[in-house]
Amino acid sequence: MKSDIVCIYGKHPVEAALTLRPESVQKVFVDPEQHTELDALARKKNVFRVGFSMKDLQKHIPRDAVHQSIAAFIDTDSLVVPFEEFIDSLDVSTNPALALLGELHDPHNVGAIIRSASAFNLSGVLIPERRQVPVTGAVIKASVGEAFRIPLVEIGNVNQTVERLKKAGFWIYGLSGAGEKTLSEESFDAPTVIIIGNEGKGIREKTGEHCDALLNIPMSEHVESLNASVSAAIAFYEWNHKHHGKKEV
Amino acid sequence: MKSDIVCIYGKHPVEAALTLRPESVQKVFVDPEQHTELDALARKKNVFRVGFSMKDLQKHIPRDAVHQSIAAFIDTDSLVVPFEEFIDSLDVSTNPALALLGELHDPHNVGAIIRSASAFNLSGVLIPERRQVPVTGAVIKASVGEAFRIPLVEIGNVNQTVERLKKAGFWIYGLSGAGEKTLSEESFDAPTVIIIGNEGKGIREKTGEHCDALLNIPMSEHVESLNASVSAAIAFYEWNHKHHGKKEV
Repeated sequence: MKSDIVCIYGKHPVEAALTLRPESVQKVFVDPEQHTELDALARKKNVFRVGFSMKDLQKHIPRDAVHQSIAAFIDTDSLVVPFEEFIDSLDVSTNPALALLGELHDPHNVGAIIRSASAFNLSGVLIPERRQVPVTGAVIKASVGEAFRIPLVEIGNVNQTVERLKKAGFWIYGLSGAGEKTLSEESFDAPTVIIIGNEGKGIREKTGEHCDALLNIPMSEHVESLNASVSAAIAFYEWNHKHHGKKEV
Repeated sequence: MKSDIVCIYGKHPVEAALTLRPESVQKVFVDPEQHTELDALARKKNVFRVGFSMKDLQKHIPRDAVHQSIAAFIDTDSLVVPFEEFIDSLDVSTNPALALLGELHDPHNVGAIIRSASAFNLSGVLIPERRQVPVTGAVIKASVGEAFRIPLVEIGNVNQTVERLKKAGFWIYGLSGAGEKTLSEESFDAPTVIIIGNEGKGIREKTGEHCDALLNIPMSEHVESLNASVSAAIAFYEWNHKHHGKKEV
């Protein structure tokens, strides 16, 4: 992924960046009197601080955005982990789950998927470097800070990555209306990869052939599909339910 | 709800409007050569047709919107059903489920909730007339046509409506991180209302007190909440799973 500086804004995302990934924060725009604590946090983390002025930032923040007079420049390069480094550090014996984005185009969906993946205890989100929305400011914003918590992993070719993950012991699931098995029938006993397809076209046929199973989410016959971030969240919810969601008896 | 004319655009929403709720379509903007079938459909439904010109519609369609050279004016008043009429026509003996929007502010969330409610076989979406995004063009767009399929029901005071629904035999559930019962523990044996709270503040305290149960969605302790449309979809999915989602044995 080519290094890119994106602007994030609003208290919650900036606080998440400073707390969880301060090394990714290049500069904070903050009025120290209005945001005393965040200003102190930035100072503590040795992040360069300047005053907030919408005039300076008008190229970076939409005019109608709720910026709360605080913003930061984030170096996305330092947010994204290379695949080999990530997979080497992952303990597969704990049966982790990963999300794999299959050519999603809407940054709001990508951000929402990152948020849900983090909420449902997944261990990482795999993001192809081609034909896929990269980690932009809109993605980070829509993740409500979770892009700074859950590892975002850059991958090259999807099908090669899938084969590499199979060798590491992962079972590969694709979400697809064409799946014969329903989501709730799957027990997710092994390390799990959940592939989410493109908003309009779903999972690529070739990628589908590399999956161990295609899972469908039962729904009304009149409705063609769910929003991609909704399908993803339901799958993560089911996985989490079978791993962390049950109450101790 | 005050009568309002909203502009929808794109093939899929316009087709859904003409097919499912032609009486709500005031006018279609269509190039008959580019969209032969939709033009014929509009003619068949006796809908007034004019040529598509972005110049005429620039006040109604965002410049970067994917309009596919087709648009329509929709009278939202004819899309929305009054509560008493809706409840009188509903067969409570079939154990239906309804969604109730608790002061949602983001039209994308409202549209996504309508889409998921329709996908998971709910019987209606109850929309308060105050402190809640009404049915706008953005809502209809985000519903991907489902706003024309599932009944959208206007309600007045939320808590009075809830009491009226209880008398009709409904159980009232609120989605809330404060809920002691998890979503998957609930069997949804009775007619069901699922209340989705505001994006930032959740369900109003007063409304929570009117609920029969607050249900929580188990998630990582590090993450504060899910996106409102994601929480709603997971609840609808669980309800549908317990009513329509199981395979015949």
